[in-house]
Amino acid sequence: MNPDIQRWIDQIRSGDPRALARAISVVENRASGWSELLKALFPYTGKARVIGLTGAPGAGKSTLVDQLARLYRTGDQKHTVGIIAVDPTSPYTGGAILGDRIRMQDHFSDPGIYIRSMATRGSLGGLARSTADVATVLDGAGRDLILIETVGVGQDEVDVMRVADVTVVILVPGMGDDVQSIKAGIMEIADIFVINKSDREGADRVEREIRALQSLALRSDKWTPPIVQTVASEGKGIVELVEAIAEYETYLKKENLALAHAAQHWQQRLVEMLRDAMLDRARAQLTDGELSRYAADVAEHKRDPYTLVEEIVADVWKAGA
Amino acid sequence: MNPDIQRWIDQIRSGDPRALARAISVVENRASGWSELLKALFPYTGKARVIGLTGAPGAGKSTLVDQLARLYRTGDQKHTVGIIAVDPTSPYTGGAILGDRIRMQDHFSDPGIYIRSMATRGSLGGLARSTADVATVLDGAGRDLILIETVGVGQDEVDVMRVADVTVVILVPGMGDDVQSIKAGIMEIADIFVINKSDREGADRVEREIRALQSLALRSDKWTPPIVQTVASEGKGIVELVEAIAEYETYLKKENLALAHAAQHWQQRLVEMLRDAMLDRARAQLTDGELSRYAADVAEHKRDPYTLVEEIVADVWKAGA
Repeated sequence: MNPDIQRWIDQIRSGDPRALARAISVVENRASGWSELLKALFPYTGKARVIGLTGAPGAGKSTLVDQLARLYRTGDQKHTVGIIAVDPTSPYTGGAILGDRIRMQDHFSDPGIYIRSMATRGSLGGLARSTADVATVLDGAGRDLILIETVGVGQDEVDVMRVADVTVVILVPGMGDDVQSIKAGIMEIADIFVINKSDREGADRVEREIRALQSLALRSDKWTPPIVQTVASEGKGIVELVEAIAEYETYLKKENLALAHAAQHWQQRLVEMLRDAMLDRARAQLTDGELSRYAADVAEHKRDPYTLVEEIVADVWKAGA
Repeated sequence: MNPDIQRWIDQIRSGDPRALARAISVVENRASGWSELLKALFPYTGKARVIGLTGAPGAGKSTLVDQLARLYRTGDQKHTVGIIAVDPTSPYTGGAILGDRIRMQDHFSDPGIYIRSMATRGSLGGLARSTADVATVLDGAGRDLILIETVGVGQDEVDVMRVADVTVVILVPGMGDDVQSIKAGIMEIADIFVINKSDREGADRVEREIRALQSLALRSDKWTPPIVQTVASEGKGIVELVEAIAEYETYLKKENLALAHAAQHWQQRLVEMLRDAMLDRARAQLTDGELSRYAADVAEHKRDPYTLVEEIVADVWKAGA
């Protein structure tokens, strides 16, 4: 292996936060060396527990994640924690950044907690891809626990959550009349439900609604997602949440599902990686000028885009052969 | 051209709803013949006005879209309307379907309004791709106006909205404490703001907040998105919304921006089409069995996925040459 890469890996694994930050940036931006770095890190990965947490804006995710991280840090095992805060709601300006800065200060004194915020990359599927790669880096860096936090419940979030071994869906009482429609999507990815701000009116009603929807039995396994009531701002219910997470992990182990889940996850991820790699090959044969001329032709209806793409693919193939 | 395709195109263009529905299904599912059909339809496209509407669950989008459609139907021009209702929030069960059925009944008697619901396809970027293709079919079928309605404000919705010439973002008063964070993403795609349910308390506050955010000037052009207050359930403000849409279209025309927008849109869409086409070529060389064996190997840490994908790409290239 490249000795520079090896030195970098050593720094990352010894806990050097700057080496880690640089690795994450390189991987996230697909900057030069990203692929060598991930290849070199891969043998060290697979040890971290990856927990995903998702919920609507205002559900109190950040507070809950902070409390969780704190508890894992101070518990018996003194886990090291990596937090990935994903915010797909601001695709252009990167809305996650400010929150990152503010929260960083809070944990600044504890090198055992590393926080990274990510907003959407430009390309399709980019966010799930970056999240998966950044989680791989944190895993390879030796973080015991990776918490992935994301806003909302659309396809983006589902893709992001696929990276996690355990998915926690956070609801709050009184989120509006149409909460039902959000839950339909949520029910299928939740391994554990949290009702945060449960001191508000309506927490028990939300719990009953979840129970009612659960009877529709959308899961392919026999796990019934537990419901944990929390008041994250006061630290209430966090211990119970940690227990629920541990229980689900025990269930996965007992049923031999962890490996099956990982294989399933990799099947999708390999296809996505393949898609990106194939596009890279195609893009390498196509200048930006050609692309924008093609786009202008289609916009002016001089060419049909379907035939055009077939021709480009054929050209790429010929050039690559 | 294939005479069957020509007959089909003729049926679609004569307004036959069954031929249209079949075309949409074929295109949406990439079923046999999709590409010939789109190629044959393309020369007829580019005439429809495409208006996108997005907002959080509970913002009253469906009601607003129905009212809009009704108005365009009964106005001076008696526009024919196609509605595409996109619901990315329920990726597995297809939450949009029920709503579709219910709403279809309402418009059942008017063949001038065609409604199609779409939930997320399995693959990444699938929803934006299907929406764009279905819009192309409706455009080619001769619909004067296409209304695309989607839930939420994540990357999915931004991708979906890219298909539209005009993007309307719908807000409602009192949607919770964290509305600010949603707006950050919204500000950049909105050509027009609607404050629906504006008879509720706080409508003017929402309007002030939008104005404040607008002063941050995130747009690359000189358009200041107007804010229209509506009560869709009572039909209030719909005429004003139609006027705002027309004004923006006039602005686009005056500034010669319509073609530039279309070229920009096609540039992104061509890359996505290329990505899919390249993946198809790769997948054709790779059996499902091979793929799941690879995934299992990676899950068991027998192989690193980054080297593996490089090898697959190299193999695909060799086989294709």
